[in-house]
Amino acid sequence: MSKVFVSLGMSLDGFVAGPHAGPGNPLGDGGERLHAWQDAVGAWRDRREPGGGETGRSGLVVAENFDRAGAYVMGRRMCDEGERAWPDPPPFRAPVFVLTTSARDAWVRGGTVFTYVTDGVRAALDQARAVADGKDVQISGGAHTVRQYLNAGLVDELELHVVPLVLGAGVRLFDGVDPALRLAKDRVVDAPDVTHLRYRTLR
Amino acid sequence: MSKVFVSLGMSLDGFVAGPHAGPGNPLGDGGERLHAWQDAVGAWRDRREPGGGETGRSGLVVAENFDRAGAYVMGRRMCDEGERAWPDPPPFRAPVFVLTTSARDAWVRGGTVFTYVTDGVRAALDQARAVADGKDVQISGGAHTVRQYLNAGLVDELELHVVPLVLGAGVRLFDGVDPALRLAKDRVVDAPDVTHLRYRTLR
Repeated sequence: MSKVFVSLGMSLDGFVAGPHAGPGNPLGDGGERLHAWQDAVGAWRDRREPGGGETGRSGLVVAENFDRAGAYVMGRRMCDEGERAWPDPPPFRAPVFVLTTSARDAWVRGGTVFTYVTDGVRAALDQARAVADGKDVQISGGAHTVRQYLNAGLVDELELHVVPLVLGAGVRLFDGVDPALRLAKDRVVDAPDVTHLRYRTLR
Repeated sequence: MSKVFVSLGMSLDGFVAGPHAGPGNPLGDGGERLHAWQDAVGAWRDRREPGGGETGRSGLVVAENFDRAGAYVMGRRMCDEGERAWPDPPPFRAPVFVLTTSARDAWVRGGTVFTYVTDGVRAALDQARAVADGKDVQISGGAHTVRQYLNAGLVDELELHVVPLVLGAGVRLFDGVDPALRLAKDRVVDAPDVTHLRYRTLR
């Protein structure tokens, strides 16, 4: 059975974006520091500008997540930001389903099809599973989208890339997540500048 | 040079105590789950009721922290709670300095001397260092006390025992910690039910 997973960078104080996050500033002030480790690893850079970048443990984590994802689900705001910022081709190399309240035709860039889904989180996930060809589905973000999937009990694995930063303000991943969420440690990968904590959800 | 360290249990969403924490309920509702891993390990139980308890990686972490601490500093409220709850002898086995605004004679239980300090965090730390016999000083808690030491730049190591719990509300360790705090990963110890993340502060 394919799995549904989340993989997000988080500061030590629980933020997935810094203060003043919004249109044109999706990571908030200083939030790009949450992803500095990722920008340096080869598996990520290869999806943006082939060649270059460090490997190491973080590189393996990123490569593994790319390999297992047969489809992606994300929120509309994340996709709008990506439309401005992603390279051509975008880093996904698999179908992307975008949660939205206003219908829109599919958007295609560099072979990646972004399909807009207006009938909710379960419908988007069903569509993603249907095309994932037995592989897993990644809930990409943002925080609001991840929370919806967590609270609906639809996430199997939650991976947090914990970066030793104190952002002090911004978007907290767990604000509004039901404390009834039960997690069990699945795997820890320790890298110099980030600790990859992966949990399984318990039903 | 002896070091100043912090060692606290924290939920995945950043809480070191649950909701409604206060006198008589120091860990808040559900906050005892932050320490379940510790209550199970031998090094901690040995300080409360000799014999019994699991060992393993978490046991080594707890034993190491007990071994390195030549003195402790804590806030008045933490000590007040401990006065009701700690066994005789208390688990410290080293001098304890208690930050308070109202003078009080030293309190002795089971050979442990609790000295009340009214002239601030630096004075308390100086007194602790003076008696630690070259060993390290642990800032025990609670969160308000730890934040004062972090913001004063007086902490060398911050160890967080991250437990896969979402508490949803309560006392956040980092609320009010200056985002200028710079940390570097020092050590990760991965245990089944808790991940021990230790950071060095950078000056």
